[in-house]
Amino acid sequence: MREKLTIIKVGGKIVEEESTLFKLLDDFAAISGYKVLVHGGGRSATKIAALLGIESKMVNGRRVTDVETLKVVTMVYGGLVNKNIVAGLQARGVNALGLTGADMDVIRSVKRPVKEVDYGFVGDVKRANGAALGELIHKGIVPVMAPLTHDGNGHMLNTNADTIAGETAKALAGLFDVTLVYCFEKKGVLRDENDDDSVIPQITLEEFKQYIADGVIQGGMIPKLENSFGAIDAGVSEVVITLASAINSGEGTRIKK
Amino acid sequence: MREKLTIIKVGGKIVEEESTLFKLLDDFAAISGYKVLVHGGGRSATKIAALLGIESKMVNGRRVTDVETLKVVTMVYGGLVNKNIVAGLQARGVNALGLTGADMDVIRSVKRPVKEVDYGFVGDVKRANGAALGELIHKGIVPVMAPLTHDGNGHMLNTNADTIAGETAKALAGLFDVTLVYCFEKKGVLRDENDDDSVIPQITLEEFKQYIADGVIQGGMIPKLENSFGAIDAGVSEVVITLASAINSGEGTRIKK
Repeated sequence: MREKLTIIKVGGKIVEEESTLFKLLDDFAAISGYKVLVHGGGRSATKIAALLGIESKMVNGRRVTDVETLKVVTMVYGGLVNKNIVAGLQARGVNALGLTGADMDVIRSVKRPVKEVDYGFVGDVKRANGAALGELIHKGIVPVMAPLTHDGNGHMLNTNADTIAGETAKALAGLFDVTLVYCFEKKGVLRDENDDDSVIPQITLEEFKQYIADGVIQGGMIPKLENSFGAIDAGVSEVVITLASAINSGEGTRIKK
Repeated sequence: MREKLTIIKVGGKIVEEESTLFKLLDDFAAISGYKVLVHGGGRSATKIAALLGIESKMVNGRRVTDVETLKVVTMVYGGLVNKNIVAGLQARGVNALGLTGADMDVIRSVKRPVKEVDYGFVGDVKRANGAALGELIHKGIVPVMAPLTHDGNGHMLNTNADTIAGETAKALAGLFDVTLVYCFEKKGVLRDENDDDSVIPQITLEEFKQYIADGVIQGGMIPKLENSFGAIDAGVSEVVITLASAINSGEGTRIKK
């Protein structure tokens, strides 16, 4: 039987404020068994970029990453945000190891081809190295993954943290019984977007299609759920969409086969 | 017989300019056997700090690290400089892993006590984790160490790169036959500071004392050599002081028992 592994993805907002970060680190430290933390950091990147006189340009919610912006995200995601989390987890008895995709070649990507939009130095994941990550995890090391990858030719690339989490989950699904938890600013997928308590507790693929047809699920939640079903298809046992403050509560929306 | 391990320490100047960085990465990739790279990054930190409106204050050549400066060095050393080196080494077939002291708890330190000078968030090394580093190295992983440590209570601390290199060398001396190479802006320890070719090829402790008495060796070279003899005393096989461009040449000054 494969052992259980929990992969938690948290956005920038949670890890950038000391009060929410500390709560998250406490909750994460309390998760039993093997685990991985994937973090964002977009708000800090925007703030530091602004202080450096670099304008943050977003298209479809994604950061356009020119050469100066790449330096900022490499500093902020790989340095400032990642190392504060790692130090915070070490203080809580978690043997954390900060990783970008370049470290031990754990996630390799290709620079996104220019179509309608030139996103610049943004990487689309080519492969996550499940064997290397699995070996660390089996030793009791807890990877803390920044949303950065590399192209194998010496360049760092900016990569969406949801994607890092999803690809890591898929790459590890052959070695572990993986639960992937996407932390979210709502309690889960809502039946009524104006009612925070209308969480749909579980969604199958059939139900997902029906919810789209009925207009219950729409907008940015559709690609999030498509990615979740993609992970399930690739062998991930369960995907959960929930509040960051509820990662140990069993609440939220569960996506199952 | 213990296997050979080479630890190379390079300053910020080398790793911050693309032309010297690429040469260093090529030379480092060409070193056979187990190896570790320790880097600085002070010039980049000073530059980014200035752009952010933070004044860099140095006392006795050491950076006074207030809370804002700590953020800058964490970003620059742990993110920008470290990840560019790691990606560059991966492109050269070296399985690099960027580490601060917090990652896998490899170097723990204590905040320097305030005496005549309050250096702020600067860490004096308490212990380097030779066992954890040795396990990585034996697997063919090449640690790339940033000049940052942690205190075990959730705080990153700024730590001199020479110290990181020395403490890492001592901690690994029980597991490997360690050569520690300090890259320097001169060809080695000079007999005449105005003659770049007057390199002293080898110095023993007795000769060192005599050189000091004679005024041949003075200033900042004295603590550098004292640290080197400290490493030798703790079991490091050899310390070399040489040019960064000469790490594979066998040139420079060798410090032996």
